[in-house]
Amino acid sequence: MLVKAAYGKSSVRIVRVTRHGDRHDLRDLTVAIRFEGDYGESYTDGKNTGVLPTDTMKNTVYALAARDGVTEPEAFGVALVRHFLDRNPLLRHVRVDLLDHFWGRIQVGGREHGQAFARVGPDSRTARVTGTRDRTEVDAGVTDLLIMKTGHSAFTGYPRDEFTTLPETRDRILATSLAATWRYTGVPSDFGTHWRAVRSTLLEAFAEHDSRSVQHTLHDMGEAVLRCVDVVESIHLVMPNRHHLPVDLSAFGLENRNEIFVATTEPYGLIEATIAR
Amino acid sequence: MLVKAAYGKSSVRIVRVTRHGDRHDLRDLTVAIRFEGDYGESYTDGKNTGVLPTDTMKNTVYALAARDGVTEPEAFGVALVRHFLDRNPLLRHVRVDLLDHFWGRIQVGGREHGQAFARVGPDSRTARVTGTRDRTEVDAGVTDLLIMKTGHSAFTGYPRDEFTTLPETRDRILATSLAATWRYTGVPSDFGTHWRAVRSTLLEAFAEHDSRSVQHTLHDMGEAVLRCVDVVESIHLVMPNRHHLPVDLSAFGLENRNEIFVATTEPYGLIEATIAR
Amino acid sequence: MLVKAAYGKSSVRIVRVTRHGDRHDLRDLTVAIRFEGDYGESYTDGKNTGVLPTDTMKNTVYALAARDGVTEPEAFGVALVRHFLDRNPLLRHVRVDLLDHFWGRIQVGGREHGQAFARVGPDSRTARVTGTRDRTEVDAGVTDLLIMKTGHSAFTGYPRDEFTTLPETRDRILATSLAATWRYTGVPSDFGTHWRAVRSTLLEAFAEHDSRSVQHTLHDMGEAVLRCVDVVESIHLVMPNRHHLPVDLSAFGLENRNEIFVATTEPYGLIEATIAR
Amino acid sequence: MLVKAAYGKSSVRIVRVTRHGDRHDLRDLTVAIRFEGDYGESYTDGKNTGVLPTDTMKNTVYALAARDGVTEPEAFGVALVRHFLDRNPLLRHVRVDLLDHFWGRIQVGGREHGQAFARVGPDSRTARVTGTRDRTEVDAGVTDLLIMKTGHSAFTGYPRDEFTTLPETRDRILATSLAATWRYTGVPSDFGTHWRAVRSTLLEAFAEHDSRSVQHTLHDMGEAVLRCVDVVESIHLVMPNRHHLPVDLSAFGLENRNEIFVATTEPYGLIEATIAR
Repeated sequence: MLVKAAYGKSSVRIVRVTRHGDRHDLRDLTVAIRFEGDYGESYTDGKNTGVLPTDTMKNTVYALAARDGVTEPEAFGVALVRHFLDRNPLLRHVRVDLLDHFWGRIQVGGREHGQAFARVGPDSRTARVTGTRDRTEVDAGVTDLLIMKTGHSAFTGYPRDEFTTLPETRDRILATSLAATWRYTGVPSDFGTHWRAVRSTLLEAFAEHDSRSVQHTLHDMGEAVLRCVDVVESIHLVMPNRHHLPVDLSAFGLENRNEIFVATTEPYGLIEATIAR
Repeated sequence: MLVKAAYGKSSVRIVRVTRHGDRHDLRDLTVAIRFEGDYGESYTDGKNTGVLPTDTMKNTVYALAARDGVTEPEAFGVALVRHFLDRNPLLRHVRVDLLDHFWGRIQVGGREHGQAFARVGPDSRTARVTGTRDRTEVDAGVTDLLIMKTGHSAFTGYPRDEFTTLPETRDRILATSLAATWRYTGVPSDFGTHWRAVRSTLLEAFAEHDSRSVQHTLHDMGEAVLRCVDVVESIHLVMPNRHHLPVDLSAFGLENRNEIFVATTEPYGLIEATIAR
Repeated sequence: MLVKAAYGKSSVRIVRVTRHGDRHDLRDLTVAIRFEGDYGESYTDGKNTGVLPTDTMKNTVYALAARDGVTEPEAFGVALVRHFLDRNPLLRHVRVDLLDHFWGRIQVGGREHGQAFARVGPDSRTARVTGTRDRTEVDAGVTDLLIMKTGHSAFTGYPRDEFTTLPETRDRILATSLAATWRYTGVPSDFGTHWRAVRSTLLEAFAEHDSRSVQHTLHDMGEAVLRCVDVVESIHLVMPNRHHLPVDLSAFGLENRNEIFVATTEPYGLIEATIAR
Repeated sequence: MLVKAAYGKSSVRIVRVTRHGDRHDLRDLTVAIRFEGDYGESYTDGKNTGVLPTDTMKNTVYALAARDGVTEPEAFGVALVRHFLDRNPLLRHVRVDLLDHFWGRIQVGGREHGQAFARVGPDSRTARVTGTRDRTEVDAGVTDLLIMKTGHSAFTGYPRDEFTTLPETRDRILATSLAATWRYTGVPSDFGTHWRAVRSTLLEAFAEHDSRSVQHTLHDMGEAVLRCVDVVESIHLVMPNRHHLPVDLSAFGLENRNEIFVATTEPYGLIEATIAR
């Protein structure tokens, strides 16, 4: 018995150049589309009537970008969602995920060049638009935002059992690769402004927090966003704990005054939570 | 308001060697542990009482493996789940994910060497054990299983709109990187036997199917598992469509008799479904 | 002043299906082509006369595969090298690298299916053909061959200084991801047979060796190939030392009888050498 | 016969925090060390006398960083090279590669925070120091510098054969992931200043160039560095051509006015050259 099913197209890469004389604008997106609906017979009987090919989904991304332009990723996602719902009677639920690769302008002689760009990263902007016959939901996000605190981070007071070896610390490095997604109330305008406000709120809260754990800081960052950006309804944060371990230098006759660390990739702690109004 | 939260340790790498004289056995696992429970105060107030450190989770993996041995990944996951539930009063829901990296024995002079191994892949065996105070659920799976059909695969009869360019085909390559996970009824014994039965059933069904689409073949593979392996309650399959496109050779004065393909990585179709009894 | 230059096309993905009735053969290659020659003016003046576009290099891979078939990767490389040297007067030195992704046949009811395949790995076969107006050299290789010894591996007798903390060991795990390339004397026939002979010789030597270090085992493996496969003129081996560290269980009141290891990915030792007749 | 051999330690991850009251400085490096010398007996006989363990190489990185601090990556590399040559009589040639992961300060209320950082990328700074008993050579570099031009890039005038399908273009996108390494004359002081000068020269030359091919632009960028930064003796540039292909919209009744592109990852052109005074 078919319980749940979805199909779609992923990793559709589109770069759109808009030419204003000598000054070009650039949008560089990776788009994924996912359909759910009354497609049971395509699974059980191989009946493809009504099954929009994923190749056509891809073509639609290019065609709509050409015909209508691409402004903010969230708005482009909304346009795709509406297009697919309008045209596909079997479609019940469509999701469009967008990854926005940001390019800054190269400086030449102190001025921005109009047609030459360098990628800015490593973080990327994300958007997810979900649509049904009844409603549209818009999430925005940031991913791969690598951040580190070298002060105001402790971890103490946890339970100990026979397998505990971790020493308590009042001064450790806290480093993470933040992925956050937040839901807007309705479909606001001016997505770029909101996105920048959330990103800088997350960074400021991380920097300013007196951290007792990753959980503690994650919660504070989420609360700060809800407090500072009123169009945000809820936020989900994922923070892997990229452990930076102090190196034991005592065998070398040296003291580690909390200065020398080995950055590790595995194992890693993984902390996540959703915070809502 | 904290709506939902989880924390844990990922990418715990453990290799266990069991020595039977000259013949060694090898188990090579990557383990991830995830806790949900009454941990709200650690987020809101930085209160760590009752918060088992993720470092201790890691230590527990090594300690239990040393004390009790490691047989099948599912059984090791069940042992970890029970240990954590027993010791952590705030814990409500624990999930242990295991990735089993399989090593075969190197052949020397036609005989298996007792202490030398080569990795067999690229697919890996997976297991997920989920536990609450009331019950334990065991999922097994396979991931990165790369499979390809060069015959008996068609895609026709789909709707066309103004953005459709895909030609219908009655003879295409069908290639995917299968990820499947299935749930057992209760906690069966003899996990290895069941795992091998499901894996070979998936491969045989894929090979034998007269495919009208990825959806159609995916469904047939899932149904075959439910038909052939009675301890499986449901199965979830994810099949990216790794498109192999025939190369247009006409400009070179050559004909492509369905022989020359370019293997592409993006964009890709993505098909998934859950099939249950 | 332009000192040295090269240009070419990388990551050309080609799958060739050969149909013998119900039984299909499959070849799955990634090809890279690299030209060196009298191309200085294309750099200094942007003069493209004589500069074969890398797009045409790609097309040539598909066209030759269609026109002449693909048997062994080395032989296909030789054909490409000759084609490019014949057609491009400015070309002095051409190199073709090939990565051969091996697919085995899926078993159905104990018999090999003619049209369904599963990838076998994680290792891949490699080939490099280098040609000038005067001569052609053929290297073959294997990459990503993950191997592990759980016995007969020691590391002792090394110098100690004030920064040494490593304990000597007479019984450690030795694990590596082997990459080896070997040069044939001239252009032999029967590349597949030689390749299988070298690969199994490498595995057997690794398994049988009484290792005093990675260097020691690497050298023995290379010597074994020169001893057993007479068409091999020299061999280069690269063996990262994928350290498996015994876990200290003493804090848990447990003893580690050389059974429990953490598999690490970084840092890693890196050992390489070329061995010739 | 052992022809050539090297051994060392790779992926040594070190983060050094220097505390000036409330304001911390951060250096985040990945270090690799490679020894060549009179180590033949370790290969042929497993004799480890004189073979410094790679584990000690790693420890030395941490110990020297603790004892002497870390300023510029090139200077730290020089210190490591000298240390290893001083202590290891069998060592003839040592190479230290450093990857410098740059962290910028998080802004809070328009001011730089003293103890909170965000990674800046995706490009990284690289350094390579090579030493023998007679001399020390210092290379610096940049890698993963993603750059794109949407104007002033053409590709015409190339030869056509029976496998040519590429249309000539006077207005294409030129995008690459630049890796450049340059050699300094001797061991200059003030590595950071030189590095910034080279990086901005590369960016400006790329932006301003009227490109007839990747080769043409690569050469111009190299010449600009030699012209503008007098301590640079030679420079090697590697520029993969990350093709951005205009999407054919004619089937949709739309015209592509050079606005809509698909960004591809494979196949890719690969252009490289060394330019010296």
